Amino acid sequence: MRVEAEEGKQQAPDVAPRWPRRPSSVLAGSREGLAAVSAALTGAVGSALAIARWPTGPLRAGAPADVLAAAKAALGGDGIPEEGMGSEAALARLGRVLVEHGLHLSHAHAVAHLQPPPLAVAVAADALASASNASLDTYDSGPSAIAVERWLIAGLIELAGLGSSADGVLTPGGSLSNLMGLLLARDAAALRRGIDARKEGVSALPGPVVFCSELAHFSVHRACAALGLGEGAVRPVPTDSRRRMSPDALAAMLRELGPEHTPLAIIATAGTTDFGSVDPLPQIAAIAAEHGVWLHVDAAYGFGTLFSERLAPRLAGIELADSITLDLHKLGWQPAAASVLLVSDAKAFTALERQVAYLNPEDDSEAGYDGLLGRSLQTTRRPDAVKVAATLLAHGRRGLGDMVDTCHDLARHAEARIKAEPELELVAPAELTTVVFRYRTGEDPAREDEINGQLRRRLMETGVALIGRTAVRLDGPGSPERVCLKFTLLNPTTTPEELDALVNAVLAAGRACSPRYQKGAA
Amino acid sequence: MRVEAEEGKQQAPDVAPRWPRRPSSVLAGSREGLAAVSAALTGAVGSALAIARWPTGPLRAGAPADVLAAAKAALGGDGIPEEGMGSEAALARLGRVLVEHGLHLSHAHAVAHLQPPPLAVAVAADALASASNASLDTYDSGPSAIAVERWLIAGLIELAGLGSSADGVLTPGGSLSNLMGLLLARDAAALRRGIDARKEGVSALPGPVVFCSELAHFSVHRACAALGLGEGAVRPVPTDSRRRMSPDALAAMLRELGPEHTPLAIIATAGTTDFGSVDPLPQIAAIAAEHGVWLHVDAAYGFGTLFSERLAPRLAGIELADSITLDLHKLGWQPAAASVLLVSDAKAFTALERQVAYLNPEDDSEAGYDGLLGRSLQTTRRPDAVKVAATLLAHGRRGLGDMVDTCHDLARHAEARIKAEPELELVAPAELTTVVFRYRTGEDPAREDEINGQLRRRLMETGVALIGRTAVRLDGPGSPERVCLKFTLLNPTTTPEELDALVNAVLAAGRACSPRYQKGAA
Repeated sequence: MRVEAEEGKQQAPDVAPRWPRRPSSVLAGSREGLAAVSAALTGAVGSALAIARWPTGPLRAGAPADVLAAAKAALGGDGIPEEGMGSEAALARLGRVLVEHGLHLSHAHAVAHLQPPPLAVAVAADALASASNASLDTYDSGPSAIAVERWLIAGLIELAGLGSSADGVLTPGGSLSNLMGLLLARDAAALRRGIDARKEGVSALPGPVVFCSELAHFSVHRACAALGLGEGAVRPVPTDSRRRMSPDALAAMLRELGPEHTPLAIIATAGTTDFGSVDPLPQIAAIAAEHGVWLHVDAAYGFGTLFSERLAPRLAGIELADSITLDLHKLGWQPAAASVLLVSDAKAFTALERQVAYLNPEDDSEAGYDGLLGRSLQTTRRPDAVKVAATLLAHGRRGLGDMVDTCHDLARHAEARIKAEPELELVAPAELTTVVFRYRTGEDPAREDEINGQLRRRLMETGVALIGRTAVRLDGPGSPERVCLKFTLLNPTTTPEELDALVNAVLAAGRACSPRYQKGAA
Repeated sequence: MRVEAEEGKQQAPDVAPRWPRRPSSVLAGSREGLAAVSAALTGAVGSALAIARWPTGPLRAGAPADVLAAAKAALGGDGIPEEGMGSEAALARLGRVLVEHGLHLSHAHAVAHLQPPPLAVAVAADALASASNASLDTYDSGPSAIAVERWLIAGLIELAGLGSSADGVLTPGGSLSNLMGLLLARDAAALRRGIDARKEGVSALPGPVVFCSELAHFSVHRACAALGLGEGAVRPVPTDSRRRMSPDALAAMLRELGPEHTPLAIIATAGTTDFGSVDPLPQIAAIAAEHGVWLHVDAAYGFGTLFSERLAPRLAGIELADSITLDLHKLGWQPAAASVLLVSDAKAFTALERQVAYLNPEDDSEAGYDGLLGRSLQTTRRPDAVKVAATLLAHGRRGLGDMVDTCHDLARHAEARIKAEPELELVAPAELTTVVFRYRTGEDPAREDEINGQLRRRLMETGVALIGRTAVRLDGPGSPERVCLKFTLLNPTTTPEELDALVNAVLAAGRACSPRYQKGAA
């Protein structure tokens, strides 16, 4: 409707505008602003280097509550301040908080999670991307960002060995890539049952079922809950002694599925979080094809092995997937997030397509003014592809492959060292870049569990090391889960000597937590 | 199970490690690395300033296909290169692609979308956050990042006027904040019906229904599709002449809902994308309370008005919401993404909580080693709070409020100018920082639609200006949607004179597309 006479108060300006003049350098994207970002960062880094008290280990020593309270205090008072302190002071404060109370992932003894120290080139490129504030949803929200993402997706499709119909999109993380892959699988399966899930929802879909190994990432369960299927839809498939999904068990479960069920997807894992184990992709793909079920490969961790000539064969069969999750903020050394969902057929994205009057009207689309809105659950979407493209151009496939190989070799080194230590028990060998082990005291297993947990917390609380932990059924299926420790080796500048020192620190912490040694000392 | 004797090939190293020595400056987070990021960015910015051909307007002139092809060519050959070119060359290349073929949001004539030119301080802080690569999911993935996010959430809760039970979390964007708000509402409503949606899914939930105004953002529909409810669950509520949800219509629709339906949520919009209109929150909240239905306020666009003393009263009633979406990458001048979901009661997050052996085992949680995993659908989560915190400290509430006021005043200025131009028809007044209008030629409406679309594309193709468009039912409910044009004014450094020049450019482009003027010239 046209604008009508409305309350005068609404139409008249409340206050006469003052039109303050602001320097254009306040904005990041202008010529002056880009220079200002560069200068501001240099200043903030200078402060961080000069003023901040860097921890000697990978994190600040102290109990978590104390560290968090100190970080909060360093931010200043509660609440949003009424008046600003200026950019320089604010950046110095934030830089100091991050340095003094944060993690130092580039420290050789930060080996807890699939959270790599990011490459300098990636971080610098990401700052350029932030300054542009381009978005991927429409042509007129960022043409260059669209070109960079399409370039990257094409390169990753080639690396994965997918065919010419393949497509892909960047997402905010592996959990959301898995969610999206499952959403596409869900809607495709519904459509084969004559249900338009996008319009009608899933209530008419008979007994939806998702298969994954019992070691699949918990984000699969979370995605099922979010997508309205419920975690009850997940059917965990047993694994073999090398922690890979059993194709025979999967085939039997599919055969036994009655018509009251709808198999939506098989989710194979290429690189389990704890063990790096890779499900047997060719066999699983054959089963998926036989039953006409969508195959999603969660290669969040493992995909980066494709950069390495030595390790790439472990992912053979990934090219048979209908969709793939990959995280270059894991084996790819990107700051989070740089996650990608690849699909073997671009038509899979139909479930996500939308025509929106203010974004992609038909006549604009026909004239080529189109973006990537129809490949995502997001509208505004940060150009994460820029940092990845910079990294691939800077280091090349070979450079990244060498880093993958180094981290794998570090894991093998840790594995050998652990095997040689009587107090340590190797629980899982180094498939990719993790190694899982347990500190043994000879006490009853529950007590050993406690000590393993304490040992790890002690390393954190003293600021000496940051190692991972997990739970493993040490005595096979059905046996109780036991607390184990884990190294996740993602720092390609770490030396074997530094790794030996880490094992020594673990041993020292174990002894400090173990009554046996304390008695001996007393 | 314990490690068994396996194939010897698996256990023996494939290749003797070479242990290459890499400089620690290759990684962003170390002392040397932080300095390297700063130097690399300075170099890349220097290249962008010295080498790149900056467009004179807000984007490169040319047809979209040509611009995208040029950007792709500037990236170099297809595929991931085998050998790297080094960081300096890669950053110079990416910087050039972004500058030459991207948008320049700091240009006064970039007014298409809710995509602000980001503040320099935010971009610099974001680079520090990227270098840290902290993650929010667990204490040991980023203690300082957790402290910063909790500080920010507390400040935003206070700004929104929520009570002491409130909580919140950052998300990758407004569409996902809306999805999460709706997920929490869905699972809470199911629970009241005795259904554990997380385990069982939504198939047993009788006729789920979501109410929102007919002008609500399309991400509400998308979220319903993703959550397994189907877009059919959305019941659009009519709007009044000022494009606000009609509380009477909403109340009537709720009253008429039979027991075969489950009302999941009312979604009120505080700042519609095109018009900036704010639904009557106090009345809607009263209706929601009466019927016991979850109230989600989508304040993705409008929340930033709370920084302004002048405009904050427009959001009165937002403190009555059960959940709120807000995007500080809109009225907040952050690079994407800086979206937040606030909830009035922290217990709402129960639907998202998970206990994961490798992330938050019980004994660690008891010892205080807890993170924010249970508030998100993500696992790894980028510390977007760092840039927002730096901005709030640098500019204060007043600094941001002044920027909001300036953009509002710019919109009022544009509104007045449009009203004064006979060739332009004001379609919607400046409620917040947008103004919607139509170029009139006096021809039949369909032809005018075409010309409005062409006009906008012409401005983009000549690189002169980047304005928005949308579709509006000009003659009230049920009338056909007509193509309209839109200014989204988010650049607080723009002057009224620059805005006048933009209107002149629109008029010139309109005449160039209009047969009437072309005939006149012939």
